[in-house]
Amino acid sequence: MKLSIALLAGDGIGPEVIDQAVKVSDAVAKKFGHEITWKPALTGAAAIDAVGEPYPDSTHDICKNADAVLFGAIGHPKYDNDPSSKVRPEQGLLKMRKALGLFANIRPTFTFPSLIDKSPLKRERIEGTDLVILRELTGGIYFGEKGRRDGGETAYDNCVYTREEVKRLAKKGFELAMTRGKKLCCVDKANVLETSRLWRETVQAMEKDYPEVKVSYEFVDAVAMRLVQWPNSYDVLITENLFGDILTDEASVISGSMGLMPSASIGTENQLFEPIHGSYPQATGLNIANPMATVLSAAMMFEMAFDLQEEGAAIRKVVNKALAQGMVTEDLADGGKAFGTKEVGDWLAANI
Amino acid sequence: MKLSIALLAGDGIGPEVIDQAVKVSDAVAKKFGHEITWKPALTGAAAIDAVGEPYPDSTHDICKNADAVLFGAIGHPKYDNDPSSKVRPEQGLLKMRKALGLFANIRPTFTFPSLIDKSPLKRERIEGTDLVILRELTGGIYFGEKGRRDGGETAYDNCVYTREEVKRLAKKGFELAMTRGKKLCCVDKANVLETSRLWRETVQAMEKDYPEVKVSYEFVDAVAMRLVQWPNSYDVLITENLFGDILTDEASVISGSMGLMPSASIGTENQLFEPIHGSYPQATGLNIANPMATVLSAAMMFEMAFDLQEEGAAIRKVVNKALAQGMVTEDLADGGKAFGTKEVGDWLAANI
Ligand SMILES: CC(C)[C@H](C(=O)O)[C@@H](O)C(=O)O
Ligand SMILES: CC(C)[C@H](C(=O)O)[C@@H](O)C(=O)O
Repeated sequence: MKLSIALLAGDGIGPEVIDQAVKVSDAVAKKFGHEITWKPALTGAAAIDAVGEPYPDSTHDICKNADAVLFGAIGHPKYDNDPSSKVRPEQGLLKMRKALGLFANIRPTFTFPSLIDKSPLKRERIEGTDLVILRELTGGIYFGEKGRRDGGETAYDNCVYTREEVKRLAKKGFELAMTRGKKLCCVDKANVLETSRLWRETVQAMEKDYPEVKVSYEFVDAVAMRLVQWPNSYDVLITENLFGDILTDEASVISGSMGLMPSASIGTENQLFEPIHGSYPQATGLNIANPMATVLSAAMMFEMAFDLQEEGAAIRKVVNKALAQGMVTEDLADGGKAFGTKEVGDWLAANI
Repeated sequence: MKLSIALLAGDGIGPEVIDQAVKVSDAVAKKFGHEITWKPALTGAAAIDAVGEPYPDSTHDICKNADAVLFGAIGHPKYDNDPSSKVRPEQGLLKMRKALGLFANIRPTFTFPSLIDKSPLKRERIEGTDLVILRELTGGIYFGEKGRRDGGETAYDNCVYTREEVKRLAKKGFELAMTRGKKLCCVDKANVLETSRLWRETVQAMEKDYPEVKVSYEFVDAVAMRLVQWPNSYDVLITENLFGDILTDEASVISGSMGLMPSASIGTENQLFEPIHGSYPQATGLNIANPMATVLSAAMMFEMAFDLQEEGAAIRKVVNKALAQGMVTEDLADGGKAFGTKEVGDWLAANI
């Protein structure tokens, strides 16, 4: 198979971890007889510095025409002091999501048996956790009309959802639930918000098409509690953009394996894969960043973008092997020997 | 001192736990020479059943004219199936907050040494946690214009904040921080939302009036993580209504003492005190509900509404004594003997 993959390394540790994912992907391609063409493109602070904007048209063209996008991380401290500036790296992220139509962000949270004691939660709370949050990514308050009136004294943000937007996200949720534990939780604030009532009634109307899926409806504040109390009680959760932003981040820390969590953002035409961690500016160039989340994002890419299940499984297997053998970066070394970003990447590629 | 206190018992276990708080407050009043006049009033499902709405005018009059409001809990399963209905108990809650101008919800999260192992978090993560979240309670997306267009196919909720609304909440936050650890965290999503940018710039402009307070600005998604990772790194947090709803609930479960957490909602003219737990309908009338959160809410009332610090301290002391001696309800009994709601209340009152 010929695979054309846009490569957006981004800022901070982005380029370093992306390099390892490329090595591992190339090793997989070699083993299974595929041919990957990597198409590097600028994004984030790196793109602002080079061409004045975080998601330039040239990058969009590359992404749009590729079979998938592999993304590192963006964000640089020099843009952090003025959140209102229009040329922040994050603005590029939002523009990219919208332009590529990436309406569903898929974030699994699972545990690695060898890492379970790194969780801030007690072992018995976290054991067996295997959930996926589907976050709507191109609607809601992120993209509604926003601005000021009364000479700047009043600010507003509008949250808008259409039934179609809810449906296409919920459909992904039902389909995913069917391949897993057949439980779906719709997270909303339907006791207060009209958009949430639209979410709830839309999902309710879809229940009959998936009679095997057990659907529950929970308020976002209750889910924020239950994710800490009994994360292993969830299977698939679907929710709107802002709730998803908060809950996916909350969920990411409970497993104790945040440095290992991958994600996918999918649309009708395009798909993007990225680690959930940030650009970790302090670690830039130090060869200490954990590349495993990016490598596992590549595994998700093989599986979801190309339906190459064996290839994805091969990557997961080698990551588990590395964890079991202590071939890990300092964040997971736990007093034992810590290897560099590059060394871990080389080992993973060599052991595919 | 003569104290006139509106008593809104509400639904479910509300009346039972309120009864114990009344007993304990009366014991305190007797000991310190105060005279409390309790003014009971209907609210929640109980009020809907009796007069057709959850926060009737007669209740509002009683609350407005009292020196403080002591509140139990509201919510009943029979109103849970249709979140869009206009006569839900929760609608009364929102109406009450607005009508009484209760713009600041104050929610402490702290640990009881004897209960620390009930936390879902590991001991070393939670030890020393003592934080307060100030949630704006009468603005934002809860109260903005909301509705449907396109024949019901599109829903919208508007989030609006004025600089004055942010200022009065932030002022409470700065003042509270000055009496505690002198750290203030402004929680927003200023990289995406215009209302958040107004929050941030307003708080930034106030920093110079409180030179001793160390102010930080964190995105809501990052705080949702850090509350689970390092809750003991926070002192006072201020935030808008919806973020506060999610984060206060998240924070409430980390201490392991949710059944003990009180709260206050304050305005310029009125103040309300209530336990953070809900109406727990399954336990209604069983004499098993833990009354301590409501009793501790009464302690907050003595301290904040009447500036009666010794009286508040007397209540805290007797609660600690009860915990130490195992005079607790079944949720805290841990295999030991469990006492009834009423028995715990009687014991607390007798030992003041
Ligand atoms: C950087 C920010 C705009 C972004 C978001 O809120 O979507 C980030 O937090 C994320 O979750 O990918
Ligand atoms: C019942 C609901 C409207 C309410 C809120 O969201 O404010 C509750 O969750 C709370 O936090 O007091």
